[in-house]
Amino acid sequence: MITKERIMEIIGNYDLDKLSIATVCSHSSLQIFDGARKEGFRTIGICVKKPPRFYDAFPKSKPDEFIIVDSYKDIPGIVDQLVARNAIVIPHGSFVEYLGHERFVDLAVPSFGNRAVLEWESDREKERVWLEGAGIHMPKKVNPREINGPVMVKYHGAKGGKGFFIAKNYEEFQEHVKPDEKYTIQEFITGTRYYFHYFYSPLRQEGYRLSEGILEMLSMDRRVESNADEIFRLGSPRELEEAGIHPTYVVTGNVPLVARESLLPLIFELGEKVVEESLSLFGGMIGPFCLETVVTDNLEIKVFEISARIVAGTNLYLNGSPYSDLIEPGLSTGKRIAQEIKYARSVGQLDKILS
Amino acid sequence: MITKERIMEIIGNYDLDKLSIATVCSHSSLQIFDGARKEGFRTIGICVKKPPRFYDAFPKSKPDEFIIVDSYKDIPGIVDQLVARNAIVIPHGSFVEYLGHERFVDLAVPSFGNRAVLEWESDREKERVWLEGAGIHMPKKVNPREINGPVMVKYHGAKGGKGFFIAKNYEEFQEHVKPDEKYTIQEFITGTRYYFHYFYSPLRQEGYRLSEGILEMLSMDRRVESNADEIFRLGSPRELEEAGIHPTYVVTGNVPLVARESLLPLIFELGEKVVEESLSLFGGMIGPFCLETVVTDNLEIKVFEISARIVAGTNLYLNGSPYSDLIEPGLSTGKRIAQEIKYARSVGQLDKILS
Amino acid sequence: MITKERIMEIIGNYDLDKLSIATVCSHSSLQIFDGARKEGFRTIGICVKKPPRFYDAFPKSKPDEFIIVDSYKDIPGIVDQLVARNAIVIPHGSFVEYLGHERFVDLAVPSFGNRAVLEWESDREKERVWLEGAGIHMPKKVNPREINGPVMVKYHGAKGGKGFFIAKNYEEFQEHVKPDEKYTIQEFITGTRYYFHYFYSPLRQEGYRLSEGILEMLSMDRRVESNADEIFRLGSPRELEEAGIHPTYVVTGNVPLVARESLLPLIFELGEKVVEESLSLFGGMIGPFCLETVVTDNLEIKVFEISARIVAGTNLYLNGSPYSDLIEPGLSTGKRIAQEIKYARSVGQLDKILS
Repeated sequence: MITKERIMEIIGNYDLDKLSIATVCSHSSLQIFDGARKEGFRTIGICVKKPPRFYDAFPKSKPDEFIIVDSYKDIPGIVDQLVARNAIVIPHGSFVEYLGHERFVDLAVPSFGNRAVLEWESDREKERVWLEGAGIHMPKKVNPREINGPVMVKYHGAKGGKGFFIAKNYEEFQEHVKPDEKYTIQEFITGTRYYFHYFYSPLRQEGYRLSEGILEMLSMDRRVESNADEIFRLGSPRELEEAGIHPTYVVTGNVPLVARESLLPLIFELGEKVVEESLSLFGGMIGPFCLETVVTDNLEIKVFEISARIVAGTNLYLNGSPYSDLIEPGLSTGKRIAQEIKYARSVGQLDKILS
Repeated sequence: MITKERIMEIIGNYDLDKLSIATVCSHSSLQIFDGARKEGFRTIGICVKKPPRFYDAFPKSKPDEFIIVDSYKDIPGIVDQLVARNAIVIPHGSFVEYLGHERFVDLAVPSFGNRAVLEWESDREKERVWLEGAGIHMPKKVNPREINGPVMVKYHGAKGGKGFFIAKNYEEFQEHVKPDEKYTIQEFITGTRYYFHYFYSPLRQEGYRLSEGILEMLSMDRRVESNADEIFRLGSPRELEEAGIHPTYVVTGNVPLVARESLLPLIFELGEKVVEESLSLFGGMIGPFCLETVVTDNLEIKVFEISARIVAGTNLYLNGSPYSDLIEPGLSTGKRIAQEIKYARSVGQLDKILS
Repeated sequence: MITKERIMEIIGNYDLDKLSIATVCSHSSLQIFDGARKEGFRTIGICVKKPPRFYDAFPKSKPDEFIIVDSYKDIPGIVDQLVARNAIVIPHGSFVEYLGHERFVDLAVPSFGNRAVLEWESDREKERVWLEGAGIHMPKKVNPREINGPVMVKYHGAKGGKGFFIAKNYEEFQEHVKPDEKYTIQEFITGTRYYFHYFYSPLRQEGYRLSEGILEMLSMDRRVESNADEIFRLGSPRELEEAGIHPTYVVTGNVPLVARESLLPLIFELGEKVVEESLSLFGGMIGPFCLETVVTDNLEIKVFEISARIVAGTNLYLNGSPYSDLIEPGLSTGKRIAQEIKYARSVGQLDKILS
């Protein structure tokens, strides 16, 4: 991983009045560019082969400039161009995935947030250490013999929502499990899914105070999963199985929702614990993050995953959410990121939010 | 129930230029405070033990002041403090539930709306008299022997979405019903749930006119119910039953939606009938209310319940809904309540909206 | 079909400074009137017997004037009144359905969009020629003997979401099919439904460029279908069948959603192909249209239908969507239509958008 010193050295040579915001042209780029432009930044879209045409339909939110690569794996080759443009890159899920974790952490361009989080987030075991260390309730990992209720079984190597199966008990598990594949088994929590979109600012002091900085909750969503969300029209899990049809859990989009107000104290508490633990473990998770949860019928919140950066569910709220509108009308997570960079520049603390 | 005369006597001693808006810190308090502040009122949050911290994340919508109680049952003990602050309390579902109906109706502080509605709303039999008297179609109450289609069975004493079961016919009912528990059986209406958020103003004259005042429809939502909304991923009702897993109907949040425009005439008609009947029965239901409905595939609307105050589904629309935005951009139900109080003050008719 | 020449002759006699916008009082009329008023047009609501009262609740969006007919079939009888008011009619689904296709195409009033599209859209075979000619993937039509996976069976004469059934394979098809009724069988695509709301402007040149004009994507929705969306609470398809209960697919409303940003290039490409093919086939589809799709777990988009005018799903976005807000805050499809007419007038090209 590139050192903080090296990044601050690069920033030291930047013309801070001409900072630009760069990201990969996918995932949540539209709101990142839109927010950056609204906050007065120049924007750079990194894309493969040629600029995606869909930005033309949203001219006010289109990047000011495109830098073209042959493959996202080649982003390290455009580092000089990015630095010459005083660029700060905003990582998102596709950025990190397309470039590759190992290349991302070494990228010699200032990046919004703390790159050290990747190591803790991408490794399932470390993620559990982090979250459970924070006192968060996660679905339990289960050994086959200990199955005594519904479980979700995930084959190693399965990708992007395929290669899961759900069993209601040990018998069903045995009946379905493929003999030669590796898997992990997790307790299946019955309830309703909520994805909470937080923002942690280590700089601000007014608001929901943490040990250093403040926590915001800007919005929430539920992911739309293909084909699991609509396959019940065809048959129940058992009926589908008899017909050789398999449920899959590939995210195709997002629907908006709000949670009961009586859950807000707990929702903030969960975000708080995760941030505080990140401060002890690896110097803190900066900026947007998401807790992926199930709310049970006892109104408990179980967290099954964390995303330590902007999530695509925030795309619902390009012009504000029921929560972010209370902070500032029309506030998106993309705009909030740009505001944080602008504020850090104004108080001379870019070192606290970049790595 | 405290008399109107007593309440008007209290208001008579208020400094009307310094009215404040108070409510219990839960349910829909964020929009009640937000709306009140936007309309220029001072706001008071009533909370247990200490102020909930989550308001810190929404500083523009945070109550100006908190009054702390040991238990919500102790709210009668802070009546003097509320009156000293010229407070009008805004009841919501949690306010009434936490304090208790019987204590709420006696509370010696001016309350937005008509307290007499509680008696008609909280008693299932009276609610049916009210709604059916208004010509509203409700799911039928069914005797066990008369079951000839899907039914919803609810045990007495069951709370908050648990202790329901659904049977498709008499055989299933018999198979599932617990011998020693009391229950009520209601026709199960197949269709899609819609919760319509109305506002009745007895003061205004411009708009959708009723016999006295006007009716608005500010928004609609569908409740998110845990675990019923997602449990189909695990199995069909029968498959779940074999595995000893039970569907529950606990509200965890809300999703936004709109209804076909061709249903709007009927939606307004239902609201109108309910208000008119309330005027005859108990002097009228004032301010926000919600009809909880199922829209069938014949485009009929069956009403299974009424909430005679602000509902949490309006939390989706803290900064406006597709409907309320047509009346005034960014209008929430919380803001609409504050506007009504402000208007009543300006025309000297607070007696028409308080009790 | 009335000729373009005749329509342009009528427009030739119009006072272009006093154009009015007229539509039938249903479907998406509220946003059509709202948008037209915001763009400075006079508005006319065409209604049966008497003006629907629900507009009174939205006074800023209410038509300036109503023209009353005994039956929508009688609209040809009010053509002179419409022409006298310099009216342009905005067709929507209910307008065309209530009036009847054959009467609509002959209506001697300028209509927004190209009437020739009706012939291609209302005939299932021609619709398939159009879409497949554009290179769009549609669910396959299947002969009974060729059924080798899930299918949707639709009886001829079935209306509005009833009279469909889903079979997982040939056996189920045989078991359910009624011997004496005509039907069509279509591949059932497993995935999640998305309805994309486009706008094609043949006039503008700045934006997502097509061969002539530009393409916009203003919003998307998922239809709420009664009772199919919630009937799984009662039982699986097989369990329901045993109980003699049948799923139906009647649209009662819409929920908002967004798609993965990585799908946007494909979403625009689909819209583009459909418009380009329409230009070759019948001179082009003008203004709003909707592709009704399923997004599979391979992130493919299958189009099962096209609506060549404003769809009711846009009613979710009367005050803007996550996408249209990027173009102009608060932009609805209704407002976009009014803007197009205003722009065409200003550049003297009404002939390009009316028929």
